[in-house]
Amino acid sequence: GPVAAVAVVRELRCICLTTTPGVHLKMITNLQVIAAGPQCSKVEVIATLKNGKEVCLDSEAPLIKKILQKMLDSGNKKTD
Amino acid sequence: GPVAAVAVVRELRCICLTTTPGVHLKMITNLQVIAAGPQCSKVEVIATLKNGKEVCLDSEAPLIKKILQKMLDSGNKKTD
Repeated sequence: GPVAAVAVVRELRCICLTTTPGVHLKMITNLQVIAAGPQCSKVEVIATLKNGKEVCLDSEAPLIKKILQKMLDSGNKKTD
Repeated sequence: GPVAAVAVVRELRCICLTTTPGVHLKMITNLQVIAAGPQCSKVEVIATLKNGKEVCLDSEAPLIKKILQKMLDSGNKKTD
């Protein structure tokens, strides 16, 4: 089914209202980790997908750390 | 000395020309990890600092994984 697109609202409160499960590393072009702060008391993870959509991921899911790990590692293995 | 501000240019090539060492977790409001891709063959990590500046971090530095780890963990310890 289509990935539930989430309207990302840049306001002074939490951006992520719902999180999207099952997003695969290959679908992600970039990942934004927003620290908990005055505007929102929980850390938020927003993935921009290859289809241009922005979706929120569950920051507590162990998957996030794996995705970040792979992104950081993959970038460095390739030699130009 | 002032953190070397980097003009972040959103063009179809690598964004980060130089990386800024010694950026501390407490200075960071959000962290963007951009996967290696057609536009740039290396992964890029851009931190937005509390003073509003955007700086590039060295994606190979072990510090990055620590920073991300802490950001993800800190967000979840706080109970509302």
